[in-house]
Formats: sequence, C-alpha cells, structure tokens
Amino acid sequence: MAEQFPQDSVGLVTAQVARFDEPFTFENGAVLPRHELVYETYGELSQARDNAVLICHALSGSHHAAGFHSPEDGRPGWWDLAIGPGKAIDTRRLFVVCSNNLGCCDGSSGPNTSNPDTDMPWGGQFPQPQVKDWVRSQKQLAEHLGISRWAAVMGGSLGGMQALQWAIDFPDWVDHCVALAAAPGLTAQNIAFNEIARHAILSDPDWSNGNYLAQGTLPARGVALARMVGHLTYMSADGMSDRFGRELREGSFSPGDNSEWVFQVESYLRHQGTRFSTQFDANTYVLMTRALDLFDLSAGDGGSLVNALSRSEADFLIASFSSDWRFPPQRSIEIRDALLAAGKRVTYANIETDNGHDGFLLPNPTYEALLKQWMQRVGPL
Amino acid sequence: MAEQFPQDSVGLVTAQVARFDEPFTFENGAVLPRHELVYETYGELSQARDNAVLICHALSGSHHAAGFHSPEDGRPGWWDLAIGPGKAIDTRRLFVVCSNNLGCCDGSSGPNTSNPDTDMPWGGQFPQPQVKDWVRSQKQLAEHLGISRWAAVMGGSLGGMQALQWAIDFPDWVDHCVALAAAPGLTAQNIAFNEIARHAILSDPDWSNGNYLAQGTLPARGVALARMVGHLTYMSADGMSDRFGRELREGSFSPGDNSEWVFQVESYLRHQGTRFSTQFDANTYVLMTRALDLFDLSAGDGGSLVNALSRSEADFLIASFSSDWRFPPQRSIEIRDALLAAGKRVTYANIETDNGHDGFLLPNPTYEALLKQWMQRVGPL
Repeated sequence: MAEQFPQDSVGLVTAQVARFDEPFTFENGAVLPRHELVYETYGELSQARDNAVLICHALSGSHHAAGFHSPEDGRPGWWDLAIGPGKAIDTRRLFVVCSNNLGCCDGSSGPNTSNPDTDMPWGGQFPQPQVKDWVRSQKQLAEHLGISRWAAVMGGSLGGMQALQWAIDFPDWVDHCVALAAAPGLTAQNIAFNEIARHAILSDPDWSNGNYLAQGTLPARGVALARMVGHLTYMSADGMSDRFGRELREGSFSPGDNSEWVFQVESYLRHQGTRFSTQFDANTYVLMTRALDLFDLSAGDGGSLVNALSRSEADFLIASFSSDWRFPPQRSIEIRDALLAAGKRVTYANIETDNGHDGFLLPNPTYEALLKQWMQRVGPL
Repeated sequence: MAEQFPQDSVGLVTAQVARFDEPFTFENGAVLPRHELVYETYGELSQARDNAVLICHALSGSHHAAGFHSPEDGRPGWWDLAIGPGKAIDTRRLFVVCSNNLGCCDGSSGPNTSNPDTDMPWGGQFPQPQVKDWVRSQKQLAEHLGISRWAAVMGGSLGGMQALQWAIDFPDWVDHCVALAAAPGLTAQNIAFNEIARHAILSDPDWSNGNYLAQGTLPARGVALARMVGHLTYMSADGMSDRFGRELREGSFSPGDNSEWVFQVESYLRHQGTRFSTQFDANTYVLMTRALDLFDLSAGDGGSLVNALSRSEADFLIASFSSDWRFPPQRSIEIRDALLAAGKRVTYANIETDNGHDGFLLPNPTYEALLKQWMQRVGPL
C-alpha cells in the first residue's frame, strides 16, 4: 500500500518505546523511579553513526514528525514538510529521531500514564519538566539508540529552545543546531498569554485539582479556551484578516435579524479549541506552558546569553518569521547577535510570511529552499 | 469638604437618572418599552447652549468620567486626567455630559436591571445594542437636557467609535469629533480576542444561559478570564517587560524548590481578573464585545469609509498610541486618510508611548498637551 504515499514521504511509520529503569532526577529535584519514551525514527543510522538528527517538538507536537500511521491516515506527521527522501532533512542520507517529551501525552511517561507505584494516572502529581530535563532525557534515548553525537539538533518554537539548550549543555554532542521561531526566554507578555491558558484550565470545575482522569471528568472547556488563546497567538493579524476578514458564518447584521451573529473567525477558533480539548491532556498543557515560561537560556550564566552560547561548538541556523508576534524576529536577532559576539558560526534568516508563529510548520518556498540548502552541510558529505 | 480635592478636579459629583417612557427600537429590531439612562454632568450649560461636550465611554467605562463620588473616594472618574477646571476639557467653560450606555451595568437599563414587564433581571434577554443605538440613545438624552448640538463628541476606543458614528449619523449635531485609539471596524484578530473573552463567560457553568442573577449564581471565573484576556491586549509588550520583566512573585527556579512558581505578571493579571469579576456584569461584557465586533463605520456605505465620512461636518482630532496593538496607529491613519479624501478638516497625531491601548487613559505630557491645545478650538471662544 506504500505506493499511495507521495514519493518524497517517509511513508508508513511506527512508534517505538524505550524503557529506562534507572531513576530520572528533574531539575527541580523530583525523581521518577523509571520511565518510558515513545519515539519514531526515519532513515537508517549509518555504520559510522554520524548521520543522526534529533528533532525536538513544540508545545502541542509529538514524536510523530513525518510519515503516516496507516494507509488510511490522511494527516502526516507535524514536520512532514521538511522530513523525507529528497526533502530538507533528507532521509536518504540522514537518520532522524523524534521523541515525545517526558511529561507529554502521546505515549511517553506523563500525567496521563500510570504511576507504577500506585497504578493510578499521575495526573497533577507528575513532576514539572524543564527544557534542560528534556535535553538530558533525549540524551539517554540517544545512548539507548547507540548514538553519541548528533549531526544536527533541530526544532521550532519550544523545539528550537531545546536545540539551543542542547548546544550549550552538551557541546560535544551537537554538530549543527537549528532553532526556528525561537527565543532565548519568554517576555512578560508571553508569560501572560500562557498564564491565561493555564488559568482557563485550572479554573475549570472539571479540573479536579489535576486528577480528572481518576475522577472520571475532563476539563474540556478549559483546555478548549487555552487552545483558542494559544492558536490566536500563533496566527498573524494580517494572515487572519486575509483568511477570515469580517465574514459571517451565519446570520446577518440586518435590522430585525435576531439570529446569533457568528463571524467565520469565531467559528474557526471554537472548532480548533473543541477538537484540541478531546485530543490533548490538560496537565500536559499546564506543564508545557510552565516549561516555556521557565526557559531561560542564560539562567546558568547570570543572564549573559553570550557567556551561555560561548560554550557551544555547533554551526547554527537561526530563522525567524516576519509576522510572528509570539517570538518576533527581534528575539532571534538576540540569539544571532549573542552567537556573533561569542565568535560562533551562525546563519540568520528572517522569512517574509503572513503565517505568523506557525511559519515554521507551513509551506513557504523561501523557507523550504533555505532550510534545504543549509541542511546540505549536515551529516557525512 | 471639597477643598480636599485637587484644584483642577471637578470635585464631588453625583449621578443623575433620565427616564424615557417611549419605546426604544434597536438596530436589530428589538424594542425596549421604556428605559433609564444614568449620567453625570460637569460644568454649566451656557445660556446659548453652545458649550456642551459629550464624552462616550469604552468597554468597561461608565458615566463616571471625572471627579469623586464621596470625600473618601480615592479613585476619580475614568478620564479625570482630561476633564476639570483648567484641564483639556475645561469645565470652567464647557458643559460635559457622560452617560452610562444603554445595556451596560452601572445604572442605565441593562442586563442587570429589572425588566419592568416581569420584575425579573433582564439577564440574557436584554437586546443587543450596537454603536448606532447608543448614538440615538445619547441624542435622546441630549434632547432631555435641552441640548440640540454638541460642541464636541469625544471618546477613546469604543468611545471613539461612538464619536465617529455621531459625526456621520447626525452631522448637524457635531461641531468637533475626537476619536482616540479607535478604528473604523474590528479586524479578524480583534474579533477573535473578543470571541475568546465571550467563550470564557459562556462556557462557565455558572453562566446559566445568561440568567445567573435569577439563578443566584455568578460566572465569576469566566468574567475573570475574559478580563485577563482583555487587559493583556490593552498593554504593550514593552510596557509589560518594563513593568514585570521575568520577576517572580514567590518561589524560585532553584532545583529542589517545589513551591509554585508565580511570575509577577501572572499575579497581576489574576488580581485584575478577580477584581473585575466582582464589579462588572457578565451579560454586559458579552453585549459590549459584540457591539465592538459589529461596529463597521462604512457598513451603510457599501464598505466605503470615504463615502461614510463625507456626510460629516465636524472638525476631527484623530490620535493613536504608538504601542497600541489592539487598534494600532494604522487603523487611525485609515480614518485620517478617508477624512482627507472626503475633504474634511482633520488633525492626526501618533503619541509615542509604552502604554499600549490604555494610552488614552494614562498620563503622558505630549498627549495631554496636544489634547489641551486642540480643545481650545471647541466651544464658544
């Protein structure tokens, strides 16, 4: 059946599970006695083990970065645009690894899996992970796979933050680092948006203090609202105007018409929120937004981004998207300038687009061509 | 006791009530058999009745635009900055009128007042007002007060939209029109933010289909969230960074510290939301945001802002605030350019500030000086 997939698709893919029986200690001191990570791989690890690329996912992403889970699966992985034979991350010569982050909800140990000590869902008891925790956890997975160095670590948004943290925490592991639509840390406005999302979840009566799975409830209203807020911040104002304008879905403005007025954009946001609320775990959303808020690349260096990045040894690609107002181009320029000040190799590009923060996930000829050309330097030549 | 108020304050003020016993027909065809408007006035109406200025309030404003309600009242009206003896809107020579809009919750007939036919709170049954309705209702109040022409109609944000609508709907009533931080209509992104606010309220289980007063519940969680979203859009990203940065209110990032991390900005937003939820009516918030979404200055002219404004006869002041991303300067420039194309008199200024959309409410020497100088042309000389 594989012939029905596009020629440049990795085709049918299957998730795998890695089990870790040694305790994992989080940055905040919490300890997980044992845990599992779910991951996917695409392409073949070379004999020299010098062609492995790690993809780090963002807030609502997962280990399913490319390909399809069944012949009937109409929706490929979240970065299928970039991963596949002949694509920017060319699986004919690169071995691609993407895992579901620890504490997430797509199969890795997280709030919606069972605490082996109690056989109950972790729920609100799962430890708060930080970006540094994910990097250490991904390193354990790499070692499990027999990898001791990444040809590249890559990601967008929160995924780009992990890539940057990798380059600082384990410099001798990272040949190339790609951080798209990222930032060295969140602004007060960024944190405020995340706080509103969390507040929507935590103030939902069905939140049950995070133990909704055990209680048989679901804070679906809160999660839907949280997603609506998040989704809105991923889109640009111009992109929304082009797509929705002031069009009504139903009803009219005419006098005498008392039907409910619903704008297209309202209908779209409600649909996005409702769909997400049935698919994504509320505790995970809280943990992920907290991890974003707590991320601070320069925290260990007294606030000096230059000092932090000076430890890295990677060749960097930093890209921003012109209409991204969540992590605007200026935030990527901060990273670029700190890398230049630290004497590191860096390519920086700002992609002109109306796609907003979602720019790194969506088709754009310049973005795709740039990534493809830059990636030719990654891996064995 | 009045001597304890600042010399340039209007001092102690008392709200008045105007009763209208004839039916009021809304733009959408709904009819209110009778209604009341609460209002305040400052200064004295001249014998020639040529010095009256109408102030229109924004989403969460009220008729209480200036002065104090008691000697102990520590908080003056919402535009006290601009209204008073010697201030921009100089009450030594101007007679200032500000009413609580029909459908609002500070005393005028609205969802939290009783339906005289049922003696129950209107709740979700109160008609949806639009900006054009408010303008007609304010005209009735003017006639009630013996006024047949405004020296100026003024407002910021939704208040500025009312001022613009006045200039179009009743050109021979409006000598001067001041619209600050306004827009000729909302963008899809603007509507989306309002939709999220409404969704927060409508998905609160205590919303009770809008009849929470009759049910003895209050959708306080939903209103708090709605306000948090709104408040966030009133502040600029830079302003928030300067004020809150990434400062923690309590707890720390250090490993081993499992106390809840709370950023200052989170604590601030929660406080704002909670306070508002005890003061503002949920139905009113829904009606006001809907009125914003439905506002379209050019709707009656097939989308031509120039045609719409060509009917006006006023002298205009249009001002924007540089860091306002809710109604950014570009939206004011659209109004300015349409006025110029229609051959109207217009002064436009963009005020440099970090105060965001709240700029029209907050102290700023340039803004205050500009408003004061421009207002010298208003009223009898």
